[in-house]
Amino acid sequence: MPNSQSPITNVLAERYASPAMKAIWSPEGRILIERDYWIAVMKGQRELGLNIPVKAIKAYEKVKGNIDLASIDARERICLHDVKARIDEFSALAGYEYIHVGMTSRDLTENVEQLQVLRALELVRTKVVAALNKISERAVEYRTLMITGRTHNVPAQATTMGKRLAMGGQELLIAIDRLHDLVERYPARGLKGAVGTQLDQQTLFEGDAKKVLQLEEKIVEHLGFKRSLKNVGQVYPRSLDLDTVTALEQISSAAANMTNTIRLMAGQGLMTEGFLKGQVGSSAMPHKVNCRSSERVHGFCTLLKGYAAMASGLVGDQWNEGDVSCSVVRRVMLPDSFYAIDGLLEAYITVLGNMGVFEEAIAAENAVQLPFLATTSILMESVKAGAGREVAHEAIKEAALEASKFIRQGRGQEADLIGLLAKDERIPLGLKELQAIIGNSKRFIGAAPQQVDQFKREVAKWVKKFPEATKVKPGRML
Amino acid sequence: MPNSQSPITNVLAERYASPAMKAIWSPEGRILIERDYWIAVMKGQRELGLNIPVKAIKAYEKVKGNIDLASIDARERICLHDVKARIDEFSALAGYEYIHVGMTSRDLTENVEQLQVLRALELVRTKVVAALNKISERAVEYRTLMITGRTHNVPAQATTMGKRLAMGGQELLIAIDRLHDLVERYPARGLKGAVGTQLDQQTLFEGDAKKVLQLEEKIVEHLGFKRSLKNVGQVYPRSLDLDTVTALEQISSAAANMTNTIRLMAGQGLMTEGFLKGQVGSSAMPHKVNCRSSERVHGFCTLLKGYAAMASGLVGDQWNEGDVSCSVVRRVMLPDSFYAIDGLLEAYITVLGNMGVFEEAIAAENAVQLPFLATTSILMESVKAGAGREVAHEAIKEAALEASKFIRQGRGQEADLIGLLAKDERIPLGLKELQAIIGNSKRFIGAAPQQVDQFKREVAKWVKKFPEATKVKPGRML
Amino acid sequence: MPNSQSPITNVLAERYASPAMKAIWSPEGRILIERDYWIAVMKGQRELGLNIPVKAIKAYEKVKGNIDLASIDARERICLHDVKARIDEFSALAGYEYIHVGMTSRDLTENVEQLQVLRALELVRTKVVAALNKISERAVEYRTLMITGRTHNVPAQATTMGKRLAMGGQELLIAIDRLHDLVERYPARGLKGAVGTQLDQQTLFEGDAKKVLQLEEKIVEHLGFKRSLKNVGQVYPRSLDLDTVTALEQISSAAANMTNTIRLMAGQGLMTEGFLKGQVGSSAMPHKVNCRSSERVHGFCTLLKGYAAMASGLVGDQWNEGDVSCSVVRRVMLPDSFYAIDGLLEAYITVLGNMGVFEEAIAAENAVQLPFLATTSILMESVKAGAGREVAHEAIKEAALEASKFIRQGRGQEADLIGLLAKDERIPLGLKELQAIIGNSKRFIGAAPQQVDQFKREVAKWVKKFPEATKVKPGRML
Amino acid sequence: MPNSQSPITNVLAERYASPAMKAIWSPEGRILIERDYWIAVMKGQRELGLNIPVKAIKAYEKVKGNIDLASIDARERICLHDVKARIDEFSALAGYEYIHVGMTSRDLTENVEQLQVLRALELVRTKVVAALNKISERAVEYRTLMITGRTHNVPAQATTMGKRLAMGGQELLIAIDRLHDLVERYPARGLKGAVGTQLDQQTLFEGDAKKVLQLEEKIVEHLGFKRSLKNVGQVYPRSLDLDTVTALEQISSAAANMTNTIRLMAGQGLMTEGFLKGQVGSSAMPHKVNCRSSERVHGFCTLLKGYAAMASGLVGDQWNEGDVSCSVVRRVMLPDSFYAIDGLLEAYITVLGNMGVFEEAIAAENAVQLPFLATTSILMESVKAGAGREVAHEAIKEAALEASKFIRQGRGQEADLIGLLAKDERIPLGLKELQAIIGNSKRFIGAAPQQVDQFKREVAKWVKKFPEATKVKPGRML
Repeated sequence: MPNSQSPITNVLAERYASPAMKAIWSPEGRILIERDYWIAVMKGQRELGLNIPVKAIKAYEKVKGNIDLASIDARERICLHDVKARIDEFSALAGYEYIHVGMTSRDLTENVEQLQVLRALELVRTKVVAALNKISERAVEYRTLMITGRTHNVPAQATTMGKRLAMGGQELLIAIDRLHDLVERYPARGLKGAVGTQLDQQTLFEGDAKKVLQLEEKIVEHLGFKRSLKNVGQVYPRSLDLDTVTALEQISSAAANMTNTIRLMAGQGLMTEGFLKGQVGSSAMPHKVNCRSSERVHGFCTLLKGYAAMASGLVGDQWNEGDVSCSVVRRVMLPDSFYAIDGLLEAYITVLGNMGVFEEAIAAENAVQLPFLATTSILMESVKAGAGREVAHEAIKEAALEASKFIRQGRGQEADLIGLLAKDERIPLGLKELQAIIGNSKRFIGAAPQQVDQFKREVAKWVKKFPEATKVKPGRML
Repeated sequence: MPNSQSPITNVLAERYASPAMKAIWSPEGRILIERDYWIAVMKGQRELGLNIPVKAIKAYEKVKGNIDLASIDARERICLHDVKARIDEFSALAGYEYIHVGMTSRDLTENVEQLQVLRALELVRTKVVAALNKISERAVEYRTLMITGRTHNVPAQATTMGKRLAMGGQELLIAIDRLHDLVERYPARGLKGAVGTQLDQQTLFEGDAKKVLQLEEKIVEHLGFKRSLKNVGQVYPRSLDLDTVTALEQISSAAANMTNTIRLMAGQGLMTEGFLKGQVGSSAMPHKVNCRSSERVHGFCTLLKGYAAMASGLVGDQWNEGDVSCSVVRRVMLPDSFYAIDGLLEAYITVLGNMGVFEEAIAAENAVQLPFLATTSILMESVKAGAGREVAHEAIKEAALEASKFIRQGRGQEADLIGLLAKDERIPLGLKELQAIIGNSKRFIGAAPQQVDQFKREVAKWVKKFPEATKVKPGRML
Repeated sequence: MPNSQSPITNVLAERYASPAMKAIWSPEGRILIERDYWIAVMKGQRELGLNIPVKAIKAYEKVKGNIDLASIDARERICLHDVKARIDEFSALAGYEYIHVGMTSRDLTENVEQLQVLRALELVRTKVVAALNKISERAVEYRTLMITGRTHNVPAQATTMGKRLAMGGQELLIAIDRLHDLVERYPARGLKGAVGTQLDQQTLFEGDAKKVLQLEEKIVEHLGFKRSLKNVGQVYPRSLDLDTVTALEQISSAAANMTNTIRLMAGQGLMTEGFLKGQVGSSAMPHKVNCRSSERVHGFCTLLKGYAAMASGLVGDQWNEGDVSCSVVRRVMLPDSFYAIDGLLEAYITVLGNMGVFEEAIAAENAVQLPFLATTSILMESVKAGAGREVAHEAIKEAALEASKFIRQGRGQEADLIGLLAKDERIPLGLKELQAIIGNSKRFIGAAPQQVDQFKREVAKWVKKFPEATKVKPGRML
Repeated sequence: MPNSQSPITNVLAERYASPAMKAIWSPEGRILIERDYWIAVMKGQRELGLNIPVKAIKAYEKVKGNIDLASIDARERICLHDVKARIDEFSALAGYEYIHVGMTSRDLTENVEQLQVLRALELVRTKVVAALNKISERAVEYRTLMITGRTHNVPAQATTMGKRLAMGGQELLIAIDRLHDLVERYPARGLKGAVGTQLDQQTLFEGDAKKVLQLEEKIVEHLGFKRSLKNVGQVYPRSLDLDTVTALEQISSAAANMTNTIRLMAGQGLMTEGFLKGQVGSSAMPHKVNCRSSERVHGFCTLLKGYAAMASGLVGDQWNEGDVSCSVVRRVMLPDSFYAIDGLLEAYITVLGNMGVFEEAIAAENAVQLPFLATTSILMESVKAGAGREVAHEAIKEAALEASKFIRQGRGQEADLIGLLAKDERIPLGLKELQAIIGNSKRFIGAAPQQVDQFKREVAKWVKKFPEATKVKPGRML
């Protein structure tokens, strides 16, 4: 046994997440949201006629930042009820007893947790816009840089590096559409009582159902929700957590697909995700430059699949008006999935900023592959020049296989496909004409640059809507 | 070995799904969508100046319904390319060769599969509205029928059967909000060529990028998509499939939570999901009335968790401009998840229509539980009448435990909690006053009826928007 | 923003896991295992001829318990390499530099993590035996206590409470068979070098492959593994983590299925999971006794489904000789899944110890249900006494429905099925004969008691094998 | 709507699975297993004294192969009970009524499904041995063929192609250990009656519990199970399905990891998975040779993750003695997961047989990378020759970066790292000595060939145990 033992920390929070995300989910952050919520309820109750003195509310407001976890913990060990311990602490600090009136524990905890989710979703939205903005910059930078596009991981047709980045960005645009929709419609459970009938608030307002509705509306609006649910039991439907966590997973997909391709390109010596200042590579293998951050993005994506599976586990699992079989799951799943997406976005934005493209190596690959990528054009020109389509197709195929063999046999990278075709009688084009086709290779990238422009315009709209995104700076990677 | 072997059928399609859903995903249904798509492309190409005769288009239109799977299969066994086989078949039927010009296989298959998804999502939306409508009817029917609400599966506070149904309906309202948003923004991949650069269509229109854009817009609009993606590779991002399948899973949650509660209530003899005409229960145990359809809803929900996990498996798994490692997954996951949600909705709507509530048994449970459910009110009235809060609380708790013991010891269901309290000197209320509190039990249901009304109004909006939902009739359960 | 922020702790570790499990996975615990491992390697290398002084090894052994996380952290911030920081710290403490010779980082970390897994699996095995032992005790206690068995959540046939517990235990017996098999064959990766070829150790021993093999065997055996893998790359295959985590999930199933049934029985007033001393129920609803620990078991099971999904995410995801895209996943998944199963077993063993069965309430349910459960026997006796089978079946079915209606209509619990049958002319049995059948109800439990005995014997074998299980005492639930 | 509609087939069964696997899971296959099972029960009952005529048993045996699905279907539409329909059909064919005596539906269906699982697991085991055998052959073939080992997808140290294959095979060896253990301990539910108490069989044998046990033992043994469960409810614990499906998933991991690496190598032009005879590549891009079968293996692995998630969904979800909420899940999950693993193994064995390695291209890559891979050795030799370790390390690192830049700048593949080092005064080695180190590159592969030998020996044990594996021939890929 070790000679001492410190508390075991949450590795996602402490190693990967940003201070802003930690502030939402930390015990202190949660208590602050909770106290804000209690204050909002008191204010609403006062406005609707309950006898709560203004100076009591002010007293609570004054001490809301005094958060002493040890004191709360000591209270819980006596009363064995976590919510009661936090009520007592806050009231003792304020010197009044006006919070939590007519409320059950779930009237507090459900809404507080939803506020954490909502604020965390908004933070994620900002960072996704920041990532889009960075992709847009880099896509514009490489708007016309021709690369060898690949399907099935083998050379297919030409595209541009900018377009490849915009392709990754397109997936993120789909994901932010969904995320934004979720934020806009994310509903609070509201003040509904133990089984959702609002009995206790009705009793408090002596049966005045209108006031109960007004109170809820005030609070919901004050907290920043756009709406509340009208028919709930003890809890809000847990499929809303599935909606939340899979929205994060969808974002992670867009990042992981792009970093997969970065890892593949790095493996072919075409680019690097960038070296962090001071980073030490392998001590045994000093020549290595590893895509560690890109791999990490992939890892976070895998974690989010797991948290989505936990959310799936809560789906269709409610009995009657609800119970707490979901409690331990949500204690883990909600913060940890947000730490994971936050860590992912930190890593992804870092990679987007630091990555470097080796243009000469790319050009060298293009030079090898271009004759192959041009075979469709050669076929069309041969037919125009009088060749039979099937005959020309066969000739080109034979030559392509012969040229591939040359490379595979290690005889060099410059397989002379053009030379082979020029010599082939079935092809009515001479060396010059064939070279002219290859020479006109700029055409091969099709509409890629215009697609990048289109992407840039779509991103600009999001940046205009959320200008705070331009200030996002990822922290230093560990 | 058996003496013969018929083709193995898809159990979800053949045993549970409706004809309308099967028509979308069957081989014949797919070919029909595919042929519509080819015709739309031809028309667009003709309008933009390509030389395609009107009578050729008419010829294709005339034969599009002649679907001979065996003939297509025979062609595939010769050319070993499934798309080519279907091109050849359609052109042979029409007597022309004008389809698939300037297209790669993925220009066809991606968009056709997306059309299947879009149409299936629309069908699901209609059925969800039908389910909501049915819930609304039943919730109104039982708007004020008091039941014993439960949390942690034990009696908590009163609610109404109508409110309990509306609570299940609320979750479905959240799910349809998401589903509707998805349908409205669901984007087509469009005509983008082998690596997404539109090179081949550009070549076809001799570099006229504007015409290429126009062609895509025409087709996308014609097919019913609201928009298309601008930056893709060979494929559309697979996280869009995650969006789709988890939207279905979210719907399934709302149904499964409700049917869980039906199973629980049936176990307590409070209701039945209804007996299908002609249904035979257990042959060995003739007294049994099993919630088989409710259990089936739960099963479909579990299936959808699995299909969502498959979609998760595709997330973050793309290399470069794409490959076919997702092919076999999507061949299974897409149709099967739609068959599952379709079977679920068939079963759920059936249960909602056939279920019966045993009002007397519910009343009997209420009679047993009411004194317990009233303890909060008794406490408040005792304090008003001069008792100390802590003293009264202790007295009530003791009496409640004593009364519970009476029931647990099997001495009867009518534990005399009221009698015990009336005799307790710490409680300043007499038997009559206590009985008056219980007698005023209608108040215990709080705002439940008004919440049902609110639910009804929200459902009515959806039904108005999608009136075809009122015509949905589930098929006979197997 | 809160006015201070302490490190965010791991809620699973700090709130639910036992000290023994935390000791394996805490930073200190890991460092201790790591130092043991380095010492084992040094000893092996020395025995095989490398020049490592005995007093150096002793010096390392002497300081291995001096674990100063802050000092290690300070070192890492300078050299930016976590393994190097820990090497430097340990060597500085010892005053020698003999550890990690000829090793790469993965030669350390892979084996250390596997040791953590192996020791955690062994701890889980002990606790599963403890749970089995507790189930066995309770099953024997209720060996012949007849209860109303249910399928589809409605009364089906009689069984005993002991048998119901043994049924839950049976599933755990299957799970421990698998777990035990896994522990026995769990293989170490071993000392294999950067890509698995053992190049560096070969160089160290000047090409002597035999010594390299011997070294590995010594270390593997010393650490408690039964074998090592012979062909690996940088890492051991991650599907071994799937094997591990799903073995834990399988255990959780056995517990969650049993606690589901406890929650159902509690909902019917037939039993309680027990009240923890000092536990406060609902402050608003003092009559409630909630199955919180049973619900928590269900929650842990759901968490494990999520961790299993993370393990699934690592499956089939290796490239070449390996990379670190799994790193962040395993940092979370491995400890957290073990904390979860540990918390689950703590809760489950507590419930098994504290639960109470309300025998009178059970008897009351049996009294209501017995006539229904006896219908099969009545049918058989009627036929023996001369009735036509179909006629008698119809008569019984009608009477059963009539009697059910009586209960459902709230007219009482004692539906007079027997009386109805006695009056029915189609049934050739009189009231006495019918009562005799019901009176002989002990027979209805079939082989349930003998099955319990069989279960007891099987559990006894495990307890004999792992006698330390009898000393397991769960900590206090929070 | 299409003008006709054939039944929708199961795409996994009809497109990918082998005849042997289909024979187990087809309706006909299931009925055959079911009839065998009924016959086994009759024989057992007769031997234990029940009055069942030998000629009746013979009559059943004679007609067991006459399977007429349409006739059974017609019966089901009348009686609305699937098991009853199959009983009636079989008895009508035989002309007797002796099957299913004293059995409930689950006594039939649970055991029959378990038999399907067991036989399918055995088939999978044979195919895994076949795959191992094929890997072993290829690994021996390329035992010493040096390749550039990669971690983080970039060159790390040398290994051999044979070792890389054996590494993939190692993961499969772990998986077969688990699979084999599962097959050996896979337990039957047995004849347990409606709630597991064996009441009905006890009644049949007039309370003779011993005969009931003997009957079960006879049947279980006859069918090929090694044991049966003693304590069950209506169903066997569904976590056994998790055990089954995750065992398949674990196998799929070993295949998918290997084919991932094949896809990566193909992308670098180092190998091909082989071209199927007659296979047509891209019609638009004739030069492409795609790893379609390797990608398909990855797809099947993803499917299995989904089926494992379905199994997870059944875990911890049982109520009381069981219900049918798992029914539709298992109808899909069990056959489909076996079709998927079967399709995967068909594809994997095909790839292992057809793949080709481009030795010259590999040699060319080695030539480029060797100086980098040799840096560790150069460092060691420099130190031996008197250089300071840190000075030499710095010099090598600088030279390595310079040489990398040369390649990245597209100036050629032959970066002269050796030349740079020879000129560097900090390195006390001349060009000849440096070339000697590179020249001795055979040593770089370490123990790779011996590891292959070890792998071969381990595989040989499995082949000896299951010699039928040598006869496995995959069908033609579609």
